[in-house]
Amino acid sequence: METLGYYNGKYGELSEMTVPMLDRVCYFGDGVYDATHARNHKIYCLDEHVDRFFNSAGLLRMTVPHTKEELKELLREMVSKVDADEQFVYWQLTRGTAPRNHAFPEAPANLWIMLRPAPTQDMRVPVRLITLEDTRFLHCNIKTLNLLPNVMAAQRAEEAGCDEAVLHRGESVTECAHSNVHILKDGVFRTHPTDHYILPGITRMRLIQLCHRLNIPVDEAPFTLAELRAADEILVTSASTFCRAACELDGQPVGGKDPALLKRIQDALDEDFHRETDL
Amino acid sequence: METLGYYNGKYGELSEMTVPMLDRVCYFGDGVYDATHARNHKIYCLDEHVDRFFNSAGLLRMTVPHTKEELKELLREMVSKVDADEQFVYWQLTRGTAPRNHAFPEAPANLWIMLRPAPTQDMRVPVRLITLEDTRFLHCNIKTLNLLPNVMAAQRAEEAGCDEAVLHRGESVTECAHSNVHILKDGVFRTHPTDHYILPGITRMRLIQLCHRLNIPVDEAPFTLAELRAADEILVTSASTFCRAACELDGQPVGGKDPALLKRIQDALDEDFHRETDL
Repeated sequence: METLGYYNGKYGELSEMTVPMLDRVCYFGDGVYDATHARNHKIYCLDEHVDRFFNSAGLLRMTVPHTKEELKELLREMVSKVDADEQFVYWQLTRGTAPRNHAFPEAPANLWIMLRPAPTQDMRVPVRLITLEDTRFLHCNIKTLNLLPNVMAAQRAEEAGCDEAVLHRGESVTECAHSNVHILKDGVFRTHPTDHYILPGITRMRLIQLCHRLNIPVDEAPFTLAELRAADEILVTSASTFCRAACELDGQPVGGKDPALLKRIQDALDEDFHRETDL
Repeated sequence: METLGYYNGKYGELSEMTVPMLDRVCYFGDGVYDATHARNHKIYCLDEHVDRFFNSAGLLRMTVPHTKEELKELLREMVSKVDADEQFVYWQLTRGTAPRNHAFPEAPANLWIMLRPAPTQDMRVPVRLITLEDTRFLHCNIKTLNLLPNVMAAQRAEEAGCDEAVLHRGESVTECAHSNVHILKDGVFRTHPTDHYILPGITRMRLIQLCHRLNIPVDEAPFTLAELRAADEILVTSASTFCRAACELDGQPVGGKDPALLKRIQDALDEDFHRETDL
């Protein structure tokens, strides 16, 4: 199949799938999700993404109607049915189907899966960024379906001819609309700590592990907009974009001052990805 | 019919209606809504609710695919088809149907309507409240479908045997999980100003107009948790609950110190509601 959707046991092409109007996602955005990339029908970092998915669900007191192993098996099986070698692998859990009422319903949670072709992105292509005040709620550590501020920020970036929006609370940089952001400065990999202001990115975690292996010092402390602008390199990371460097921030050139270290990190991530997804 | 759903021109009982899996509400909560109450098949404050709906849509740069008059006519016509004399009248707009991508799609917006029986609530029944830190985003003036913090707060209230959660940012009271909150103190009606921390409630606005007519002074300035606890009366208002007084806050008795003024306000609102919805 070209794409593949799943809703509580029903399958079909994404554009033909329907869901009940009374699924709580339809009126509250009441759910959590996770997503990653597959290549050669192998799903990258599946364990980590499924762990985070269960964690998000638990933080919102939702019960996943499958074990972790069952969910992984279902995802692997579905990925094998989609023609494309490279896929965007997305799944979510919503808090049941019931008449609209804020408090939790008696109904069981609904599991959704959406698969579609998505070419593996080239890490060597730099990204252009804008900066925007971070006006999101204080639960950014949970991967929820309440993504309106992210949507509005991404649209602003696109209209500025850019790839991503770097969000900041006052002077402190948090993350991007749909990626984490880090800097390299004087040989150190600096990244916001995993508090309620950012999503604990799987690619972020993998990069930190790779830095440890490569003896690159890691500093998990907030950094400022001024430090972002003065960074040797700015790195934008996610499960879809992997790790790309920024060449422009609010129309001004940035980064490009430590290409050797950047390349070491990107190469290590690329190698890790290939080790998991090569045939 | 017992209930009535509408999605882009399709009609049916709510429990039987379905929507596309790729409606952007399903993965971003990307939409806005409004809701009010109907009695005798007449919709209360329809002009005000439709105005606010268009305003919410505009703030998120969504285009309603109808004029205000067309939408009102559609709502009136649908309300007439539901058997119940008293109804919850709910409608929403979502930003089109398209493959998941943060930036806006080319697709037109989708209009949803959901009607169901709902008895008019008795304003004389007091409510019990809890207090919770307000962790929502900074766009609470827009009536969006990103309602997870409201869901979690309402659930906490229900588990405490209460009706609503009063939210506060530090010491400053904002609003409730799905209502506005006001206090009466020394004969003055005090309420949070309409900034980005609260929804500009239609019932709130109507009460302010009624206070002006009754020569009750109105103070639109933030008040604190301490002022809430020491208020003569605490009023919780929404399009569903109208205007109910609180008898308990975090397990302690509150209010009950100015029943005469409370009754004048509730009677005025009751009269206003009956004037618009009597046969």
